[in-house]
This record gives sequence, C-alpha cells and structure tokens, in this order.
Amino acid sequence: MAYIFETVFPVRDYEVDSQGIVNNAIYLHYFEHTRHLFCQEAGTSFREMQQKGLDPVLRKVEIEYLTPLTLGDEILSRLKLTRQGPRFVFHQEIFRLPELTPVCRGECTIVCLENKRLSRGDILAEAFADVIS
Amino acid sequence: MAYIFETVFPVRDYEVDSQGIVNNAIYLHYFEHTRHLFCQEAGTSFREMQQKGLDPVLRKVEIEYLTPLTLGDEILSRLKLTRQGPRFVFHQEIFRLPELTPVCRGECTIVCLENKRLSRGDILAEAFADVIS
Amino acid sequence: MAYIFETVFPVRDYEVDSQGIVNNAIYLHYFEHTRHLFCQEAGTSFREMQQKGLDPVLRKVEIEYLTPLTLGDEILSRLKLTRQGPRFVFHQEIFRLPELTPVCRGECTIVCLENKRLSRGDILAEAFADVIS
Amino acid sequence: MAYIFETVFPVRDYEVDSQGIVNNAIYLHYFEHTRHLFCQEAGTSFREMQQKGLDPVLRKVEIEYLTPLTLGDEILSRLKLTRQGPRFVFHQEIFRLPELTPVCRGECTIVCLENKRLSRGDILAEAFADVIS
Repeated sequence: MAYIFETVFPVRDYEVDSQGIVNNAIYLHYFEHTRHLFCQEAGTSFREMQQKGLDPVLRKVEIEYLTPLTLGDEILSRLKLTRQGPRFVFHQEIFRLPELTPVCRGECTIVCLENKRLSRGDILAEAFADVIS
Repeated sequence: MAYIFETVFPVRDYEVDSQGIVNNAIYLHYFEHTRHLFCQEAGTSFREMQQKGLDPVLRKVEIEYLTPLTLGDEILSRLKLTRQGPRFVFHQEIFRLPELTPVCRGECTIVCLENKRLSRGDILAEAFADVIS
Repeated sequence: MAYIFETVFPVRDYEVDSQGIVNNAIYLHYFEHTRHLFCQEAGTSFREMQQKGLDPVLRKVEIEYLTPLTLGDEILSRLKLTRQGPRFVFHQEIFRLPELTPVCRGECTIVCLENKRLSRGDILAEAFADVIS
Repeated sequence: MAYIFETVFPVRDYEVDSQGIVNNAIYLHYFEHTRHLFCQEAGTSFREMQQKGLDPVLRKVEIEYLTPLTLGDEILSRLKLTRQGPRFVFHQEIFRLPELTPVCRGECTIVCLENKRLSRGDILAEAFADVIS
C-alpha cells in the first residue's frame, strides 16, 4: 500500500523539551498538520467539511516512538488512508532527513459526525475516493 | 495600587525547552490563563462575553523576563487592572515560590469589540466595576 | 487493579482549538504532567533519574478519545502502573468533573535507558516498588 | 532600515484557538522560529553559541497585534537587527499573504551571557557583523 501524501518541514526549536528531544505530544501535532495539508491537497478542508455539517472526530491514536528528533532536524511526514466501515484510518510515518531514519509511526482513527451523530462515512469516502485504499 | 487576583500553579515539565528553562511564549499562556481565572472569579467569562456579542481582543503585550523558571518550580501569578478609555490594561507579574523571586512582569492591553466594532468599553467596565483601578 | 495516583486540574482556555474542544495532542501533555506529578509524589523525579544516569523514554502511546473536553471543564486524571519485563506501562484515564464522565483513556509504555542502553528496568522497578502492580 | 531575513510558512490548524484565531502566544513562537532560521542562515545557531559558552537570553518582548490570523492563512515573517550596547533588538513583523496585510509587529530584546555573566555582546556582534544595522 503506497503513501498518498508527503510533506517536509523542519523541527522548530521550541518543540524540543528539557530532555533535548522533540516532546512526545508534538508528534501528534505533526500528524495532525500533515493530515490537514493532505485534505487541502485532496480538495477539501476541515473548514469546508464543517460548513457542510460534517464533523471529523479523532477517536484513537496509536503511536510508536522509534528515534527521537532534536534541534535542527528536518523531517519527512507521510501518510496513507484506509477505510474500515465508518472508521477512516490514517497510517502515518515520520522520517528524519536526509537518511530517512524512521522516527515514529502511528495510526490515527477518525470517524465522521453528521449533525452530531455518527455517520457511515459515505460523504467523506466520496471526497477521498481517488486516494483511499 | 493593589493586586486584585492571584493564583498558584506548578510549571509543567513539557513547558521547559531545550535551554532548560520555561519557553518565552509560555509566559503569555500563564498570563492568559490567569486573566481567565480572574474573569471567572469576577463573575464573567470570555464565553459569556462572547454570548453577549462582546469580543475582548488582545492588542498589545509588553513583557520583561527577569529570572527564568525551570523544572519543578511553583509560581504565583498576580494581576491588577486599569482602564485608559477604551483600553483595559492588565498589569501582570509572576513570582517563583517560595521566596517570591520576580520572574517576569508585563502589561497586556485589551480592547472590546461589540458586533465587530471597537467599543468604548463601558459594558466591560461595568462588569469589572468593583475591581478596576 | 486500583489507581495509585490522581490529580485534578482545569482545562486552560488556550488548550481549546478551533473546533471548540481540547486539541488531541494536549491530552498527551495531561498524561505526561500526571506521570511527572506521580513520580514526584513517589519520591523520585525525571530530573533525579537523569542525574543517576537513568533516562526514561516513552516508546508507545495508545489513546482513545471518548468525550471531548471544552472551555471551563475541570478534570480528574488518574493512573496505575504495571511492569512487563523492561517495559513500564502507565494506564491513564481522564474524567470530566463533577460527574466523572470518561474523557479518554490510554496506555503509555516507557523503557529505561542506562548510559544510553536499554536496561532491564530493575532500578526503576525498585523506585516504584510500593506502587507497581 | 531594510529587512535582513524573511521566511514564509502556513498557520497550522492546531495553533488556532477557540476564538477562531491564532492564539496570542503562538506569535512569540513564530518570532522565535524566525530568529532561529535567521541565525542558521547567518552561519551560526543557538546550539553553536551554547557550545562556545555563549547563552543568548531573551530579556523583553513588545508585540502589537494588528490583524488576527486564522485557519488556512499563509504568512511572511521578516526581521531586522539593531544593537544598543549589550542589547540586540530584533525588529520583527508578520504579514498575511498574498496581500501583505500587517498581522503583528514586535521588538525582541536579547542579551548575551558568557559563562553565566552579562557580556558586552562583542562576540555576538561579530557573528552578525554583516547584517546588523
């Protein structure tokens, strides 16, 4: 299953904590930022979804930390997307450049509320029809 | 001019950056959190103001850093409030406990929008009538 | 298996994002802050561990989001601790007060490096001997 | 006095708070990130300074908020640098693209500690000799 989106950005110094490494919670920000850039590119955005009454909600995150990032690092953040009924799972990985050292990998499970109720996800699936596995 | 509100809280480890001290931007979070606790105690909240069509907006911050905070520190955060026409100025100070070492002091200037336009601030002044200097 | 530590704190307004709910990454900050308070109470701290050449490292987080937190909420954060060989697993839960609504639950797996190498964890186990399940 | 460095980056969705705008403290992160990128480009970095026993310390920030940023905005962040004896002042401005709407401007005053004591700043001045006004 191939990656469908990737982006590159630097670690910001303020994201590094007193242990000298990027704080564990920041990786969830990296994951979220990557998903949002992906959605923009895929032709929709969280804003637009909200305007249509769709409310994508994060239900679960599993993340494994492999190699810590530190000051001055540059990263490659990649994702692919699968659907399991009403659940959309973003499979996300972050690598350190330039050697592509694996930094972390995770699965972020999203469901879609329509008018505050859990939806089957068909509208979202349609928006991502071209890229979903 | 006396302080009208104070609160105590610990530094959280994730707020300390790679230099081993609380990151400079976090102090603005401390200031903001203190203002919000003050507003709650004064009987109003940013939520309630927004529901009345009032929108308090931060216009300016001046902050002087005196002594850095680090892991395990506990702080005392204090404020007083003055009005200069449409501008409300929160005078804020943070001290490290238990010796009350001055950590930083700042002035945060807020104006109040009513229906998206700059207001004279009379409604806000009324809400704070008992505490404003 | 009983909780061995709990703490109460308020949601800070700046932790709430544009969807009107506490941002998903912030819960990892809540978890981390709770673990650190627990360690302090248990008589050790990340600082002290580091001074002994021990380096506790987060390897994995699984978190399930049940009910979103929002402005003005107050939370109860609880944990218990188990050991699986070299791995220490913090089982953490957050509830909204006063009704104890389940907000999220997660497992945070920590290993301990000694002089940069993975240790069997015996020193850490000793430090937590009284509380570990 | 001309700008000596500029960089472009997008607002990240998690930086927007419950008022629908980028949280006030985040602008200090933008300022800091811009200064660090500038230092890298100028051929030094905070890491390298620290290795030489130099410790740049933020003493004061003044920031004026002009137009709020929101979801999906892209920004241009610029700075210039002046010296006032031992004090280095970064004059920083952020604009919203593409129309270059002024978002905020600020002055960040930095001093340089050498072996924990306030220095005259001559080493830092030398590092920035080509760009300082």
